[in-house]
Order: sequence, then C-alpha cells, then structure tokens
Amino acid sequence: MMSEIPKSHPRYNSLISRERLVQASKDGLLAESAMIAHGRGEAFDYLLGEKTSASALKSIKEVAKRLKRAKNPVISINGNTAVLAGEDLIKIAATISCPIEINIYYRTPLRVSKLLNLMNKYKQKISKEEAPEKWKAEEWVRRINSVKILGENCKGKIIGLEGPRSICSLDGIGKADVVLVPLEDGDRCEALVELGKEVLVIDLNPLSRTARKATVTIVDEVSRASKLLLEEVSNVESEDISWDNDKVLMDALKIISNSVNRIK
Amino acid sequence: MMSEIPKSHPRYNSLISRERLVQASKDGLLAESAMIAHGRGEAFDYLLGEKTSASALKSIKEVAKRLKRAKNPVISINGNTAVLAGEDLIKIAATISCPIEINIYYRTPLRVSKLLNLMNKYKQKISKEEAPEKWKAEEWVRRINSVKILGENCKGKIIGLEGPRSICSLDGIGKADVVLVPLEDGDRCEALVELGKEVLVIDLNPLSRTARKATVTIVDEVSRASKLLLEEVSNVESEDISWDNDKVLMDALKIISNSVNRIK
Repeated sequence: MMSEIPKSHPRYNSLISRERLVQASKDGLLAESAMIAHGRGEAFDYLLGEKTSASALKSIKEVAKRLKRAKNPVISINGNTAVLAGEDLIKIAATISCPIEINIYYRTPLRVSKLLNLMNKYKQKISKEEAPEKWKAEEWVRRINSVKILGENCKGKIIGLEGPRSICSLDGIGKADVVLVPLEDGDRCEALVELGKEVLVIDLNPLSRTARKATVTIVDEVSRASKLLLEEVSNVESEDISWDNDKVLMDALKIISNSVNRIK
Repeated sequence: MMSEIPKSHPRYNSLISRERLVQASKDGLLAESAMIAHGRGEAFDYLLGEKTSASALKSIKEVAKRLKRAKNPVISINGNTAVLAGEDLIKIAATISCPIEINIYYRTPLRVSKLLNLMNKYKQKISKEEAPEKWKAEEWVRRINSVKILGENCKGKIIGLEGPRSICSLDGIGKADVVLVPLEDGDRCEALVELGKEVLVIDLNPLSRTARKATVTIVDEVSRASKLLLEEVSNVESEDISWDNDKVLMDALKIISNSVNRIK
C-alpha cells in the first residue's frame, strides 16, 4: 500500500503518516478513537499549511531548553505518538538521558505491552544505524540502550484523576519536574500542571484545552516537531526562561485565519 | 455505549455521530481511512461552531432547487454518508423521485452489499413511520418503496478515472445530469464536472479540492445538512439559477478565521 504514493505527491508525508496509523490500528496498537483524533489533527495541519511555523519553531527551542534544564525530565507517549515519532523521541531521550513512559488514556495491559515491544524494536533499529555527528559510535549505542521504556506494572498515581487514566510510573511522570507529553488529553494536562510540573505539549489544535493549559505548546505535527526537537536538544544550551504561551496560540490561529487567502 | 452520553451534552450530536461510525467500522461498513476522514470533518465543524451557517443554508436551498429542476438526478453515497445521513437521503430521494447509488472509493463487493442491506433496512424502517404532513400515508410508503438503491453489478464507467473508482451505475451516475454526492473525493468530483454534470457536494473543508471544484458546495456536516435539505426539497419550487460558489467557500473560511476570537 505504501508504495502506491509517489514521493513527489505534495501531501506525501501526510499520506504516509495516515497509512502507518491504519496499519498500527490493525495491529492493535491504538485505541478506537485514535484514527478520529488523527483526522482532527490532519484538518488543523491542513489549515496551518502542513509546515512548521516560525512561531512553532520558537516553541520547539523553548521545549529543548526546558528539557535540558530539568532535574527529572520524562517523555510520556501514547499510541499515535509512538507510531508517528517513536524513533526520534528515543533519540531525544538518549541525548538528554531521560526515560520514556508509555502512558495511554484507554489503558489495557495488552496495548501497553505491544507499545513497549514497538519502542524496544525501535531502540534496536536505531542502535544499528550510524550515530549522529556529535556522538562517538559507542557512546551513542550506550545511550540508546540506556533509554528506559517505562509503563508496565506502574505504581504511581496522578493526583486529581480517577480510574486507569490516573496510573503513572513512579520513576517516570511520578517524580518528573518536566514532562514532554505530545498529543495529551486535556484533563491529564491540567492535572499535571496542578501538580506543579512543567507540561510541554505538541498539539495541532491551538484551541484545545491541552494547548491552552500547557506550560509550552508546540502547535505542530508530532513527527515534524520531534525531528526538529531532536536537532534543538542536540544544539541549544540551557538559558534563562521567560515564556508567553498565549502568544504561540494566537500566532497559530492567525495562520489558520490567513488560510482565507488561499481560496482565490 | 450510546446511553452514556447525556442528551444535554453540548456536543451530543457530534459524539453520537462518532459512536455510530465506530460501530459501523466494526461492522465492516467503512473503508480503513473513513475514521480519519470523519476526524478531519470534526475539526472543521468545531471551527465552524458545529452549526449550519446562513451561507450554508443558502447552498442547501440552491441544491434543493437544482435537484428538483434536474431531468435525471441521483444521490451518490459512500459508507460515512449512509451511516450518518442514510435515512434523510432516502426521504429526499422519495420526495424528488430519484435513485440512490452506493458508490465507494475503495470498492469491495462485500462493503457494497453491506451498505445495500443497511439502506434497505432504513427503507423498511421509514415506511413504518408516520408520513410527513405533505404526503398521504399510502403515497409516501409507495414513494419510499420505489427508491432504487443502485450500486451492485455496475456496468458504467466515469470517464477520466482509472480502476475500481471509475465504476458507476448506468442508471445512476451514468445517465445523471445532476449528482448530489456528499463527502466526495476530489478526483471524482473533478471527473464528474468534466463530464458536464452538475455536482452538488457536502464538505466541511472549504479548502478541499471537492469543495472548490463542485457546482454547489454545502459547507456543513452531512447529517445536519441532509435534515435541512429534506425540508427544502419538500418546500421550494424550482427557480432560475445564478450561483457564485466561491462566495460560499469564502463565507465558511471567514467563520473559521473568526474562531481566533475564541482564545481570549
């Protein structure tokens, strides 16, 4: 199926992402609502012109700074994130030496274990590829192998939430001061912020509760943003921080507004 | 599952539609990408305020006029349309005496026959309900029973398209001068217009190729628009026609733009 889309297609990346999710859904990696959520994202990305805006790039740099400055950062991922950006997020975790936690809204032990397998396969694959320029080959492989994938047998609880969606890992979200959590649900984003954690999100909908409650919002597509975030965590130094997140949301909405001008 | 959503929920209709599609997908009525397409629609509808705009209502009236004036109108439906608006479209077909053609982009004989069964079940259900005020009970039941559901054993071909997606019914799209085709694909919309047919579409994305190529575009959610279209075909008389479709697309984009103001 993948081979049918020519690389020259103007919406190639979008169509490939869609096919990866369709396959992952068949493989039981995703919740029922995952495809609908992806479609919603496609619509916003379409209005944003399917590219990273200058404003989103500022958010990406800010997220890189905060991840590097954090004491106990963690990257929390769900099914869509694992499928679309899993490899780059492992490289980011390897670069800043933090764990990845599989934390899914509709938690089932089977899906958690399937996502763990997927992430471990990605780790093996990456460790066989060439190391980035910045790293010696051995050191890179050691770092990739050291990335802990948390999410099974979790004993932590996110205060303020009920039921399975409150579960978290004590070594991951539990003790984290900074959480990068692409594609998060609004309730959980809010609960994590309430606990005093910095919550860094990637969300294509600038009007979503997640986008509006987060400490820093990257209004961009998760695979595109993760690729750029990997570059930034490899480069930027930690700096002083002052951040106006509403500015970023307004910028994104302005781009959406300007899509009016595409019609004629 | 349905019963969990209280009718008072501000997004009740949207959530019910989503659940109907999830169920239909499990039942094998939909293509793999159908849920993603629905999610895209949800996002645009969200930005449009989840209601029929004054401009969309004008389009609905225009579509009603053109359907009534047509020599050989047909309503072409895919899986999402059948699930979300099948009953109202049968009533519209009964009112204007036209066939319905099941015409799906990813055609498989199994899905066509499942959708045929669904539409025939709807016909039975409707014929047992009370007739609309305008019709005598017997006449209404006769009209509902007379609505042909085409789509199996098709011998027609849409010139300009290749493969299974070019197939159509000779008695439906094949000989039609006016095609109401909610949720159509861009390529097919273009091919139908090229053949000199009037193409009337319902599409939530005012920037889509379908929305821009169609003769008349209703930028609205398919179930909401179909309900209103049923009212209009029951009421309006055929009139002279002059139509600026770009105006409608601009109107929708202006509403989307104004969603900017929802942030602060």
